[in-house]
Amino acid sequence: MNYSVEIKVMPLKELLDPQGKAVMGGLQNLGLENVEDVRVGKNITLQINAASAEEAIELATIASKKLLANPVMEYFEVFVNK
Amino acid sequence: MNYSVEIKVMPLKELLDPQGKAVMGGLQNLGLENVEDVRVGKNITLQINAASAEEAIELATIASKKLLANPVMEYFEVFVNK
Repeated sequence: MNYSVEIKVMPLKELLDPQGKAVMGGLQNLGLENVEDVRVGKNITLQINAASAEEAIELATIASKKLLANPVMEYFEVFVNK
Repeated sequence: MNYSVEIKVMPLKELLDPQGKAVMGGLQNLGLENVEDVRVGKNITLQINAASAEEAIELATIASKKLLANPVMEYFEVFVNK
């Protein structure tokens, strides 16, 4: 069966996120003063052919560890789309 | 109150996603043959000071339209984290 799996890769909370800071400056220049913090990461959607949702999650986790996320700077979360 | 709002910005389904194709090639080189398609987008988390979740979503939608998403190539979705 075909599963749509989403991987969210975000900068670790302990680290500065210069891209997020730049976006926050841009939003404040646009008058959106209520935005207090911005963090920018990646969202990766995989279409995986797997026997079960668990297997699809396992494959996406392997993909994240081997290629998609850098554990020194990023954490990731994996979800299956219903 | 402070709301954590997530914005998912993805390439439009009708368009090619060269970054996603590159990631798919990388995954297949790692032996993950079951991955049939990959699309890569952005995930932006905003901390917004707003009176209600609806107001926070409205501000995030304005931010997406004005700065974060390019409607020619991307679509976006806004969620409030519980």
